[in-house]
Amino acid sequence: MKSLRFSLIQKNFVVGGIEENKEKIISSVEEVQKLKPDFIVFPELSLVGYPPEDLLLKHAFIEENAEALKEITKRTSKYDSVIIVGFVDKDDDIYNAAAVIQKGEVRGVYRKILLPNYGVFDEKRYFSSGHKPLNVEYNGIKVGISVCEDIWIPDGPVMEEIADGAMILVNISSSPYHIQKGLSREEMLKVRASDSRAAVVYVNSVGGQDELVFDGHSLVIDEMGKVIGRGPDFDEAVLTSDVIIPHIVNANLHDPRRREMAKNSSERTKLIVLDKIENVEREEIKEKEISHSLEIEEEIFKALSLGVRDYVKKNGFEKVLIGLSGGMDSSLVAAVAVEALGNENVVGVLMPSMYSSKSSVEDAEKLAKNLGIRTYTISIEEVFDSYLKVLKPIFAGTQPNITEENLQARIRGNYLMALSNKFGWLVLTTGNKSEMSVGYATLYGDMAGGFAVIKDLYKTMVYKVARWYNKWKGREVIPQNVFVKPPSAELKPGQVDQDSLPPYDILDAILDLYIEKDLSPNEIVEAGFDKNIVEKTVKMVDRNEYKRRQSPPGVKLTTRAFGRDRRLPITNHYR
Amino acid sequence: MKSLRFSLIQKNFVVGGIEENKEKIISSVEEVQKLKPDFIVFPELSLVGYPPEDLLLKHAFIEENAEALKEITKRTSKYDSVIIVGFVDKDDDIYNAAAVIQKGEVRGVYRKILLPNYGVFDEKRYFSSGHKPLNVEYNGIKVGISVCEDIWIPDGPVMEEIADGAMILVNISSSPYHIQKGLSREEMLKVRASDSRAAVVYVNSVGGQDELVFDGHSLVIDEMGKVIGRGPDFDEAVLTSDVIIPHIVNANLHDPRRREMAKNSSERTKLIVLDKIENVEREEIKEKEISHSLEIEEEIFKALSLGVRDYVKKNGFEKVLIGLSGGMDSSLVAAVAVEALGNENVVGVLMPSMYSSKSSVEDAEKLAKNLGIRTYTISIEEVFDSYLKVLKPIFAGTQPNITEENLQARIRGNYLMALSNKFGWLVLTTGNKSEMSVGYATLYGDMAGGFAVIKDLYKTMVYKVARWYNKWKGREVIPQNVFVKPPSAELKPGQVDQDSLPPYDILDAILDLYIEKDLSPNEIVEAGFDKNIVEKTVKMVDRNEYKRRQSPPGVKLTTRAFGRDRRLPITNHYR
Repeated sequence: MKSLRFSLIQKNFVVGGIEENKEKIISSVEEVQKLKPDFIVFPELSLVGYPPEDLLLKHAFIEENAEALKEITKRTSKYDSVIIVGFVDKDDDIYNAAAVIQKGEVRGVYRKILLPNYGVFDEKRYFSSGHKPLNVEYNGIKVGISVCEDIWIPDGPVMEEIADGAMILVNISSSPYHIQKGLSREEMLKVRASDSRAAVVYVNSVGGQDELVFDGHSLVIDEMGKVIGRGPDFDEAVLTSDVIIPHIVNANLHDPRRREMAKNSSERTKLIVLDKIENVEREEIKEKEISHSLEIEEEIFKALSLGVRDYVKKNGFEKVLIGLSGGMDSSLVAAVAVEALGNENVVGVLMPSMYSSKSSVEDAEKLAKNLGIRTYTISIEEVFDSYLKVLKPIFAGTQPNITEENLQARIRGNYLMALSNKFGWLVLTTGNKSEMSVGYATLYGDMAGGFAVIKDLYKTMVYKVARWYNKWKGREVIPQNVFVKPPSAELKPGQVDQDSLPPYDILDAILDLYIEKDLSPNEIVEAGFDKNIVEKTVKMVDRNEYKRRQSPPGVKLTTRAFGRDRRLPITNHYR
Repeated sequence: MKSLRFSLIQKNFVVGGIEENKEKIISSVEEVQKLKPDFIVFPELSLVGYPPEDLLLKHAFIEENAEALKEITKRTSKYDSVIIVGFVDKDDDIYNAAAVIQKGEVRGVYRKILLPNYGVFDEKRYFSSGHKPLNVEYNGIKVGISVCEDIWIPDGPVMEEIADGAMILVNISSSPYHIQKGLSREEMLKVRASDSRAAVVYVNSVGGQDELVFDGHSLVIDEMGKVIGRGPDFDEAVLTSDVIIPHIVNANLHDPRRREMAKNSSERTKLIVLDKIENVEREEIKEKEISHSLEIEEEIFKALSLGVRDYVKKNGFEKVLIGLSGGMDSSLVAAVAVEALGNENVVGVLMPSMYSSKSSVEDAEKLAKNLGIRTYTISIEEVFDSYLKVLKPIFAGTQPNITEENLQARIRGNYLMALSNKFGWLVLTTGNKSEMSVGYATLYGDMAGGFAVIKDLYKTMVYKVARWYNKWKGREVIPQNVFVKPPSAELKPGQVDQDSLPPYDILDAILDLYIEKDLSPNEIVEAGFDKNIVEKTVKMVDRNEYKRRQSPPGVKLTTRAFGRDRRLPITNHYR
């Protein structure tokens, strides 16, 4: 039966790395030639990495990207496949674009029409919008081209392509991860396919870029909304699938919706007729590649691992350093780091004080042993005493308070940074989202470091992911005692987190309503929470914006991560 | 002669402070009644403060703003003046809007048409664009209404208002400061006025909001482009001016350009006819208020003072703390702080080490004496020794390097934060833009604090502003020796900045081309700089994005301040 073969290149491209991305694109084209695909499709802005941010304000950057596209075109001219590559198109202005390349020539350029400017996205800062949807005709079959956001609107550009005859929708994306995004994205794309009785070929990039993780999960979906190819989550892959044309034609004879849409067609879609490629002999694809979906905890763990690995490696580091307190947060971060980088590249530092319980030190040592990582132990007592002595005259007449607690955290921060400076290891910080939200962390203390791995993971989820991790490993890597003891900062005698904070299940539920849903305190109280607790919590969140502003980046996991995603003023009188 | 009287309320509104802003608006209306103005005009989004950022994603916030507008309308109903207030208009979506209020009724709403989404602006993240320009007819005279950006495009909405008969253009703004912005803004507005032979009434807000300073500099410009009223820079003021109508009519009889524009009119402008107000008897305005323009150094110093004052006070602090090294940066920051908050609210801390020269301590003490501020002196030697002792076994076999230098800076950071925590004083950091650019600063060390006053001021300008300051004060407040000695971090024996950095005049010139102009290294070399120095500098800038990301906020002075203004990825392979 007549079919079109698509190779989806779900790979990890680096922001700003035009030269290396170009080489990766060319070698990927070569790599898939054995399967003789009709189309080879790369993710959105694969040539420059996503998001390039203000690199887009440098004309030299735009020019180098244009030169690189020329070279890709030239060096792939000997192949028959049509190649679709994301790049920056410069004309009267710059556009987020897809080049359609055939036999050494750019045959057409699609310019992204819908530019996202919400959440973590700032595309209207950089690009002009394209004006025309694009169908390319290949051996008599129309294939609609679009970029990411263009397919997220039900009556957007892709529906114009459908109305003007597209049988297959190719969408190139760099769609960042949040929890269960892969699933909801897949749902949406299945409905787009079945609504239009067209196949959907969706290529997403994969990799970590500062706070963002791109999860892959590329898809080929048939005209009935059935997934016939799915790339893995959080891994590079090349996915090749055949889209069967007679199925699409028949489905449309059975289903009148496309006729209705064709009636409404504005004929705004541009049509480019590609060269016919005839008599391609090729082997059948034996095994369909349909990666399985992950459960939430696994998904989170893998997102964190990929985020850490790419932040560390793309920034030129090999080894990382983690302060191990024997608590749950640092235990999970260490587990993630070992998964991401190998245990030989993770160093644990124990920094006990007079307030550290014996079991804390034991738990940390046990964890390090289980993970097979090297540790150092450096007491903070002596240095703490020397600070107290020096500050004594100035502090005369005052009572010990949060000052002395912060000082301990800051000495630990200094130790970690000293090791980092001396040996070139990157410090991973261990604060979770519950703490970051209410400011239960010391600026320049436990917040000091290069990457805040779990800053977007609420404490209750930290436990869940840790439990999943032990189960996955089939053994108690994170010691059981870490799960059962009450969380504590151990900065004064007998201290536990719940002295200052509501129980984490209540705190996290309130934070979800306040931060993720942006409800007002009154509305949260109406949802069934104690007024005093709600008001106290909200006040803590609002007051600690200044701390979050100085925190290291960390992996975005929620729909409302602190940073580019949730942009609140520090100076803010709204109560 | 027939005239319209405008009162421009150039005041300091607080982001999120709907209640206090509302009261300020109402009392301002009452305050100017003695002059019986026809129009009382408030800045852009004066009711909610600018920029409200993600507060705009909270529906409760939008509703409270709508309620407050109702109350303003009600409580000002007894006055005849037309009141124009910036607020958030909610309908099918939300709009950045101006309410036109007359006698207890909102008679019309103008919705901002051009939404800035570049530089520090993200308005397309929040608002829909308005579609219709608006003229209000008052006693037979058409007055065009617009919001900020709408007047920055030569053929934008205000020209449609002109084409449809507006004699006066009222623009409400919250236009943030950068060096000489007031001047270039005034130039533009003068040309708008003379191009259209209409008067321009431009009201800008004033005050500091996180990294932004709004400079005021409100203007009334006549139909020939002559300034007839100018609000002060960096201060609150109420400016009342009469716009003479016959002058405008005659100017248009002499000048045919408006006729040409009227021919092109699309008649898209909405017209609202306000109630006639007749037989108002009022006194003449005796003294025209035309504040003088400032020289660059004075402008910068005042912008810094206002930025500091508002960050400190709006965030609920009274006193600030500054580490005094005896160098130029901390000297200027201390001077700014004293100007902003009074010398009784500024505390200096001297933290000498074995590497501090005698003259450094003397210069710092002299400065403190000249400024009349209290100081503490706390040596870092003992604590430094205790760190070295504890770290010795781990550092065995390594040579002293940047690690030990950073450690000294971090001990100082810890001292300042300990005092801050104990006494509730805000720490001001003292790094300049040259240092921030190349990362010549210690994260969690001298970068630790709440507000980085001069982070957007290049070192060469630091000297100029300091020189102006001494001249302004008429005495050597900043000691002469601070001007003549070579800058040094004093973190190892005999160290000076120029050991690691190019001379500041060359460095700053390169940074200007790389950061402000976004030129490529090759282009900078072509501009006449040494290739090695350029490459080294550019590399340092690129590599230190991670540090800048964790720095405290500070006053934006340039067109490309680190932060919201210059958004570069940390992970970035572009070279």
